[in-house]
Amino acid sequence: MPVGTAGSVKALSPNDVEGAGAEIVLANTYHLWVRPGHERIKALGGLHKFMGWKGPILTDSGGFQVFSLREKRKVAEEGVNFRCLVDGSKRFLSPELAVEIQEALGVDIAMAFDECIEWPASKDRVAESTARTTRWLKRCQQARKNSDKTALFGIVQGGFFHDLRREHIEELSSLDLDGYALGGLSVGEPKEELLSMVDFGAPLLPFNKPRYLMGVGYPCDIVEAVIRGIDIFDCVIPTRSGRFGHLFTSQGRINIKNAMFKDDPNPLDPLCTCYTCAKFSRAYLRHLHISKEALAPRLFSLHNITFYQRLMQRLRAAIEGPEGELEALRVEAWGWQSRFGEAEISGENK
Amino acid sequence: MPVGTAGSVKALSPNDVEGAGAEIVLANTYHLWVRPGHERIKALGGLHKFMGWKGPILTDSGGFQVFSLREKRKVAEEGVNFRCLVDGSKRFLSPELAVEIQEALGVDIAMAFDECIEWPASKDRVAESTARTTRWLKRCQQARKNSDKTALFGIVQGGFFHDLRREHIEELSSLDLDGYALGGLSVGEPKEELLSMVDFGAPLLPFNKPRYLMGVGYPCDIVEAVIRGIDIFDCVIPTRSGRFGHLFTSQGRINIKNAMFKDDPNPLDPLCTCYTCAKFSRAYLRHLHISKEALAPRLFSLHNITFYQRLMQRLRAAIEGPEGELEALRVEAWGWQSRFGEAEISGENK
Repeated sequence: MPVGTAGSVKALSPNDVEGAGAEIVLANTYHLWVRPGHERIKALGGLHKFMGWKGPILTDSGGFQVFSLREKRKVAEEGVNFRCLVDGSKRFLSPELAVEIQEALGVDIAMAFDECIEWPASKDRVAESTARTTRWLKRCQQARKNSDKTALFGIVQGGFFHDLRREHIEELSSLDLDGYALGGLSVGEPKEELLSMVDFGAPLLPFNKPRYLMGVGYPCDIVEAVIRGIDIFDCVIPTRSGRFGHLFTSQGRINIKNAMFKDDPNPLDPLCTCYTCAKFSRAYLRHLHISKEALAPRLFSLHNITFYQRLMQRLRAAIEGPEGELEALRVEAWGWQSRFGEAEISGENK
Repeated sequence: MPVGTAGSVKALSPNDVEGAGAEIVLANTYHLWVRPGHERIKALGGLHKFMGWKGPILTDSGGFQVFSLREKRKVAEEGVNFRCLVDGSKRFLSPELAVEIQEALGVDIAMAFDECIEWPASKDRVAESTARTTRWLKRCQQARKNSDKTALFGIVQGGFFHDLRREHIEELSSLDLDGYALGGLSVGEPKEELLSMVDFGAPLLPFNKPRYLMGVGYPCDIVEAVIRGIDIFDCVIPTRSGRFGHLFTSQGRINIKNAMFKDDPNPLDPLCTCYTCAKFSRAYLRHLHISKEALAPRLFSLHNITFYQRLMQRLRAAIEGPEGELEALRVEAWGWQSRFGEAEISGENK
C-alpha cells in the first residue's frame, strides 16, 4: 500500500497511483483527525470521495503516531493524552475514538488502536503493554457501529519475546477479526530481529485471514516476509526515498545525484514501463533533482511505487508459479539492494 | 507559453502541459546554459528530447536574467560580465554566445540578446542602450548557423519614450526578423504605462510577423494586449500563483487558504474541465495546500495553465467571431480580477 498520510500519496495524483498498479492505499487516522478533521471529511462524503481514490483504503489507528511522540504523550488505561505536533493542542485518543474516526472516514479497513512501545523494552513492560493492547482491542470491537462497511484488523504485539507473541496471537485469533497485523516491529531493532519475529509469528496467525506487516520495508524485506506468509505491506520508503532521489531499479539502487548520470541518456530502469522511465533520461532526471524542480519528486515517487507494485505482482505470480520461481525472485530482490554499477561490475545481476 | 525555466514547467509533466492545451513552452537560455549546460543538452539530442516536449520551444536570450542581477553585472559593448547566482562562477554572455546556446539547444524560436534596462531611466540612457541593442541584434544575426531550424525574434527597446520606440521598431523592421517582441516592459512601471506603450508600439510592428509581449501578465492584461495586436505571451503568473494557492476562476480569483473553502464541496471552477476541477473539491484542495502536500502546487499549476490556455482559445475564436465578442470577453476577463465571492455579491459576474 502506498502511504497517503494526509489523504494524498505525496507528490502523486490518484491517477498516478492507480497507473502505478496500486489497488489500495494507506492513510493516517491521526493526521486526518487533526487536519482537516474526520467530521469534515465525513460531511464531504467520506475519505474516498475527499481524496479522489476509488479503491480500498486502510487507515492505521493513530497508535504508531502517538507512540512516535515519546515524551509528549502520557499513556493511561483510558487512552493517550498528548500534545499535538501539528497545531500544539492538547488531545486525547482512545480505542473508541480511533474507531469513531476511522468509521467517519468511511475507510474499508480500520486498524485497532494499540500501544506500540520502544525497542528494547523489558519483558514486564512488554507483557503489561500487550495486555493493555488486548483490552483496547476489545473496546475497539465494542465501539464499532459500521462493521458492514469498515473491517477491523487487530494488531499483534508481544515485543521480541516468543512466548508473549505466541500468547497474544492466540488471544487475538480467538476474537475473529477481519485481519491481523504484526505490530511493534520496525521500531529500531536490527533487521534480523524483525525477520526472526516474522519467521516466528506469521505461521501462528490464522491462515484464512489477511496478514499485514506494518511499516516494512525494502524490496528484499518484502520478499522475505512474503515467503514467510505475509500478504499486506505499507511503507513510506518508495515515496520518501523518491523525494531524496533514491531510486529502486532492476540494476540496483540509484542515487540520482551521482555525477555518473550527468550525461546518461538511458531511462532510470530499462525494464520499467512507468511514465518516468518511458519518457526521460537519467541525465534529465538528475538535472531536475539538482535544480530542485517540483517534477522530480513526483517522477521519482511514481517510479518507485511502480517498482514496488511490479514486485508485488511478480510475487503473486511466483507463489502460483513453478517450483523455484519464488526463490529466484528472492535472489533477484537481494541484487536490487546493491548500488547501481556495483552489481554490473561483479556480474551478479546479469 | 507556460514558462519552463530550467527545462520543466514547474510541478507539471509534459503530458500535463499538453493536456492543459498549451502548444508551445518557453525555456530560459541563461538557466540551461548554467545548468546542465547547452553542450550537454545538445549531446543528449537537444532540448525537446531532453525535457520530453514535442511541440515548439521558445527561449529567451538570457538578457532579462542578466538584467535582473543588477549590481552583480557589468555591461560593455562586447557583452555582459556577471557573477552567476547558481554556481557563483564569473561568466560572460554576448550576442554570439546567446545564439550559440539557443542553437545548441535546438529550440524553434531564439530571442535576440538585448539590453533590458531599469525603469525609470533617462532618455539619454535609453537611447544609448537601445542603439546597443540594435548593434547586438545585428551580431546575433551574423552569429546564426542554423537559421533553417531556429527562428530569430528581435526585441524592441526604446523604454517609455515614443520617439525612441518608433525609431527602434522601424530599424528592427528593416532587418526582416522572424518575429518581434516588445521588450523593456514589465520592469516595474505602472500598468497604464505598459498598456499605453503596447497601444503605441503594437500597430507599428510588421503586421505579417508574430508579435510577442514578454512577461505579461494577468488574464485581463493579455486580453487588452491581444486587442492591441499582440499574438504571443509568456508569463510565470499561472504557475507561480498556483504554487502560492492563488487561482484564477470564472468566478473571480481564489486564495485557497481562505477559511471560506474549508467545507466547500464544489470544484475550484465549475466551468473548468481540467483534472483538478473534474476530480477534487475546494475543501480538499485547501487541505492539500494547508498541509503543504506536493500535490497542491501541481494541481493548482495545472488549473491555472488550463485557465490561461482556455482564455487564449477563446481569444482566437473571438477575433474570428461576430462583432462584440472580443469586447464581451474583455469585460468578462476584468471580472475575473475580482476576488471570489465579491463579484457574486455585486452580481457583476453573473
